[in-house]
Amino acid sequence: MDPIRIDDPQDPRVAAYLDIRERDLAGRQGRFVAEGKVVLDLLLSAGRFGAESVLLLENRLAGLEDILRKAPADLPVYVATGAVMDAIAGFHMHRGILAIGRKGAPRSAETLLDALPARALVVVLVGIANHDNMGSIFRNAAAFGADAVLMDATCCDPLYRKAIRVSVGAALKIPFASFTDAAGFTATLDRRGYGQFALSPSGQTDIRDARRCERLALYLGTEGEGLPESLLARLQTVRITMSEGFDSLNVAAASAIALHHFSANRN
Amino acid sequence: MDPIRIDDPQDPRVAAYLDIRERDLAGRQGRFVAEGKVVLDLLLSAGRFGAESVLLLENRLAGLEDILRKAPADLPVYVATGAVMDAIAGFHMHRGILAIGRKGAPRSAETLLDALPARALVVVLVGIANHDNMGSIFRNAAAFGADAVLMDATCCDPLYRKAIRVSVGAALKIPFASFTDAAGFTATLDRRGYGQFALSPSGQTDIRDARRCERLALYLGTEGEGLPESLLARLQTVRITMSEGFDSLNVAAASAIALHHFSANRN
Repeated sequence: MDPIRIDDPQDPRVAAYLDIRERDLAGRQGRFVAEGKVVLDLLLSAGRFGAESVLLLENRLAGLEDILRKAPADLPVYVATGAVMDAIAGFHMHRGILAIGRKGAPRSAETLLDALPARALVVVLVGIANHDNMGSIFRNAAAFGADAVLMDATCCDPLYRKAIRVSVGAALKIPFASFTDAAGFTATLDRRGYGQFALSPSGQTDIRDARRCERLALYLGTEGEGLPESLLARLQTVRITMSEGFDSLNVAAASAIALHHFSANRN
Repeated sequence: MDPIRIDDPQDPRVAAYLDIRERDLAGRQGRFVAEGKVVLDLLLSAGRFGAESVLLLENRLAGLEDILRKAPADLPVYVATGAVMDAIAGFHMHRGILAIGRKGAPRSAETLLDALPARALVVVLVGIANHDNMGSIFRNAAAFGADAVLMDATCCDPLYRKAIRVSVGAALKIPFASFTDAAGFTATLDRRGYGQFALSPSGQTDIRDARRCERLALYLGTEGEGLPESLLARLQTVRITMSEGFDSLNVAAASAIALHHFSANRN
């Protein structure tokens, strides 16, 4: 790996890094941006996504050699001064570690389910539109050994820059896929033998009494509206019992509690 | 309550609301900013802090009458058009609900402990410097019935605007106080009969096996460094067991799991 020095922010070889913040919103044609040391490490080692290039602040190179050794030998590694890097990214990049990954062709939810082991824990997200929550849920899913995340079409992109960052790279590690029809997807999981739990403040069972089954799907909805009634009616509903007078829990915090519970409850 | 119309963003009566974002950093002389309907409701109903005034987008007034009825009759309620409100706040205030609260004189940690019931759950924070984490921890503390939050001097201010918002107002409800010397404070809790648990990735006991005691203190440290070794040596250490290969949990998520555990474990 021979680092390639970039002196001109307009150099076409780093065009994918231009104005990172603005282009988050516009999408980036099948690419995503990975930031920071831990995330770069996961991108290069998890093998889920291909890396297209790396752009580093010149003084970060020495500290990253072990990580960069995990990349294919022909991966371009660009280095730049702070001023050039800031001019490329469009804001001050104090961490100085960026990479471009390729999203690849989306897998179908069914294909993803086919690839899971006989014993599996999957997270099903409906309407999670906030990138912080999305990233945090992926982080918790990775911390507690979930095998996959399945999302309906109203969820935001887990490969959005901020979601990846908040996930501490878990979005690059845990397989995910989208489905379009929640009712149809519920039937799919049912046919495959999944026990299906929906987390809801009005759930029938305290989550402490919910038993882990061999194949388990945990549904999480938006904080405001929660999961749609039509979906709740098809699933076993579980609640996290809270203090009277302040029954408000962030969906990411709820996912931490529920995933911790099911990860332990292995019998 | 007769709403007072404000037409000039420079009106001295709304000076406390000027350039809200910038002044967060500079402090605001014993005042804090509450934002949004739920937070305003808690400010006016929890009774922990005095309110100095309220500033509303004119079209929000009708929907807030029930909440404003909880305020003293002489509390000034200012209303403004969107353009005037944005000019006062210095950015676009789409929610259109602001209030100024008074911090009052800080209580000592000992005074706060004196006021707690015989059975109590307190959260002890060391080095929590991120306002998102601070707000989330308060939210979880409220959700699971913690009685107080005690903080060392390196923690950030729970009454910072963003921390209050993320806490969904819990920072205005749960009593908190600061201490200067962590070792001394540990001794104080010990004398008062608190069982003291420190959450740490290398904790000796899985939290599932930690029993709730009558008076319980749960210590949480920063995500990077964790709690100082000198403190861990004095306390019972508990861990949240995670998946191999991705043992990374946000401190707020960890607080949710631990507080949920101890809130249940009431015997």
